[in-house]
Amino acid sequence: MSGRKIPVAYFSWNYVLDKQNLMDSIRVVLSHTTHPGNIGAAARAMKTMGLRQLYLINPRHFPDPQADAMSAGADDLLREAVVCGSIDEALQGTVFVAAMTARLRDISHEVLTPREAMPLLAQHAAQGPVALLFGTEMSGLTNEEIGKAQVLVNIPANPDYSSLNIAAAVQVMSYELSMAAQGIVPGMPEVQPAPHEQVEGFFRHLEDTLVQIGFFKSKHPTKLMQKLRRLYARARLEQEEVNILRGILSATTEYNARLKTRYQQEQKDV
Amino acid sequence: MSGRKIPVAYFSWNYVLDKQNLMDSIRVVLSHTTHPGNIGAAARAMKTMGLRQLYLINPRHFPDPQADAMSAGADDLLREAVVCGSIDEALQGTVFVAAMTARLRDISHEVLTPREAMPLLAQHAAQGPVALLFGTEMSGLTNEEIGKAQVLVNIPANPDYSSLNIAAAVQVMSYELSMAAQGIVPGMPEVQPAPHEQVEGFFRHLEDTLVQIGFFKSKHPTKLMQKLRRLYARARLEQEEVNILRGILSATTEYNARLKTRYQQEQKDV
Repeated sequence: MSGRKIPVAYFSWNYVLDKQNLMDSIRVVLSHTTHPGNIGAAARAMKTMGLRQLYLINPRHFPDPQADAMSAGADDLLREAVVCGSIDEALQGTVFVAAMTARLRDISHEVLTPREAMPLLAQHAAQGPVALLFGTEMSGLTNEEIGKAQVLVNIPANPDYSSLNIAAAVQVMSYELSMAAQGIVPGMPEVQPAPHEQVEGFFRHLEDTLVQIGFFKSKHPTKLMQKLRRLYARARLEQEEVNILRGILSATTEYNARLKTRYQQEQKDV
Repeated sequence: MSGRKIPVAYFSWNYVLDKQNLMDSIRVVLSHTTHPGNIGAAARAMKTMGLRQLYLINPRHFPDPQADAMSAGADDLLREAVVCGSIDEALQGTVFVAAMTARLRDISHEVLTPREAMPLLAQHAAQGPVALLFGTEMSGLTNEEIGKAQVLVNIPANPDYSSLNIAAAVQVMSYELSMAAQGIVPGMPEVQPAPHEQVEGFFRHLEDTLVQIGFFKSKHPTKLMQKLRRLYARARLEQEEVNILRGILSATTEYNARLKTRYQQEQKDV
């Protein structure tokens, strides 16, 4: 899998540096948030994905113990949060703004999925500050706020139950941003794939053993071996696994050998 | 922009029908959840993305008022939740299992991103019940639980702060599943994947046989069985293959039994 090398890159200093620079030019802007607990939970969601710039437009209660409690270990984002009196203040200096919406109709703007919009936002973040704008819990963004955005983003949700908690929406969007900011793929552990000749040696060993234990009696060896080859081909056997499997085969026959020897020994002793 | 079309397709009746059938064959399994509030929040996250099948393995408190409160309008999922006494009970009948992990090292299984793994899960969901497995809040899944999965999934997170709340993780995964399910057209499977209990039956049969033939002598059964589980997990065993492998195991023991009998017979004849 191509993922193998990438985790190394993920933990390399340059990598983290580059990604962090990009993420640090992305603001999450929460407008007129009603419940301080949601601000804390949003901060936690942001931080898990490497976002740190939190802007709050006229939050009803902030700072607030509920916000601290819900932020878990992300209280640093709350302490550094920028509280603004207007949306223009919050968007000051931004070169691109994406606004969240639950509505899909009666909207003049282009509505994108998170997967379409977040790469756009990340690209612009390489050029200057950008903002991802979330409206108030109950009614979302006003038309005036929507008018400040270049694109609208809608999280496709269950038509019968689309009420994502604002922190859940922040989590999904932060995740998409993080994925957009990098092509990270957690890798498979380092493995030693068994070379062809080792795998073939295993198949010979397997077939010999199956013959010896009488497995093929009244069956079709060729067809069965083909099925077994297909099974182990899908598994992409590693060297250690070939050794384990051949160890099992050896144990099978050695056991019989021990019985035979003991049997012959007894005969001699008579 | 394709973003416009997606919501339209999403709300078309056939689309919802097909997608709902697929989503209904996907179980979200929460193992030993400590805080009932997390169960409620997880249910809400599931429902926003169209998931309905919630399984709980030995939850510390359930049902619980906190779970109801956090579920918002998703209390129907809590009422229909299946509470299980063991992981095998929760995975009964599943043809594919993906398990969440926060660890990337010291893991034998293949580790995929949500974006890689959820299309796999959705494809298998077109063939039969599948499960997405979440461990307990503090310590995650046990090695035994991980051993039941075909793939592991890791949400790439901030290396300095990776503590996604379990409901946040469920939200991200449900979102990825919902996105993946839009691409899936349920069809007839080419093969018959072996259900969980058949695979577990094979592993029991295998271990018993290895004990009988003395394979484990001076080796570590648990570690070796984990390696063998990993091998066959990658192979995604089919029913016929399970039958073949168990046939081999039976032939092994029958052969040894015949040898013993003959040996004892000879003794008597002496």
